[in-house]
Amino acid sequence: MATQGLVIINTGHGKGKTTAAFGLALRAAGQGLKVCIIQFIKAQAKTGEAQALTAAFPGQIELHLAGTGFTWQQDKEVVKQAALAGWQLAREKILSDGYDLVVLDELTYLLGFGILTEAEVISLLRERPKRLHLVITGRDAAQGLMEYADLVTEMRAVKHPFQQGITAQKGIEF
Amino acid sequence: MATQGLVIINTGHGKGKTTAAFGLALRAAGQGLKVCIIQFIKAQAKTGEAQALTAAFPGQIELHLAGTGFTWQQDKEVVKQAALAGWQLAREKILSDGYDLVVLDELTYLLGFGILTEAEVISLLRERPKRLHLVITGRDAAQGLMEYADLVTEMRAVKHPFQQGITAQKGIEF
Repeated sequence: MATQGLVIINTGHGKGKTTAAFGLALRAAGQGLKVCIIQFIKAQAKTGEAQALTAAFPGQIELHLAGTGFTWQQDKEVVKQAALAGWQLAREKILSDGYDLVVLDELTYLLGFGILTEAEVISLLRERPKRLHLVITGRDAAQGLMEYADLVTEMRAVKHPFQQGITAQKGIEF
Repeated sequence: MATQGLVIINTGHGKGKTTAAFGLALRAAGQGLKVCIIQFIKAQAKTGEAQALTAAFPGQIELHLAGTGFTWQQDKEVVKQAALAGWQLAREKILSDGYDLVVLDELTYLLGFGILTEAEVISLLRERPKRLHLVITGRDAAQGLMEYADLVTEMRAVKHPFQQGITAQKGIEF
């Protein structure tokens, strides 16, 4: 049976969407696959897992940042241009056929902000090399995208420490 | 503010419970924390992320296996003894104060099988060093355990490829 690339979506308002995607990148790299991660929204790769992944697999896992940080108080046009540049990079990486797994972290927000349409994203998913696994993360994944995907998981917050006044902690929350 | 260890539970019938826990281990290691992972149920560390984690962080991430594999057609007493040995190891590792993060992967099944009680698990959580972060994964986490935890996420399967006749694939499913 030939390998068939899966489209995987981690959505929902709970924790673990990006963390599970990074865990999957780690799993793939551990099995010798080539991985490209593009992080939308985030402006800096300051998270522990990003540092660890790129340090542990320099030739095997690539990480690109295509964001300007959280978007409040920012010029909308600046945010949009950064996101579109990231999307262009994602297109190139996906169509290059140079990877086994591509992670588009927090891509769903670009649809929410009206920067990309669902049709544009699905069109790229259809165009991609058949063997390529693709992971998309972010809250509120569009319905059509979930219908196109092979595997959709909703991370649902049952309980969150910030609700209890516990602050974010290095190595755990970031 | 002093560091307060969090009790984190990844439960639900969807994907990503263990993968997110491994992603968190990666994040913690990337920030210089010391990690111990004990996998219940699983008999062999053949998953890509386990290989990758231990190879990438030999002195920083420890992985122990305390299972006999999936339990059908196995002697119940053999399963129970392996699980209890794993639990004893978990107690020692947790109480040693030698780690910043301990992952008890698939621990919830031991409660489901009646091998451990909720009270025994919560008692160890209370005894643990204050700074220690603890992650517990597995389906159907006990209610009292979820009440004790700081962060609970339910991974809910919205769509799964096995439903569509796609087989498990190396680097993605294992």
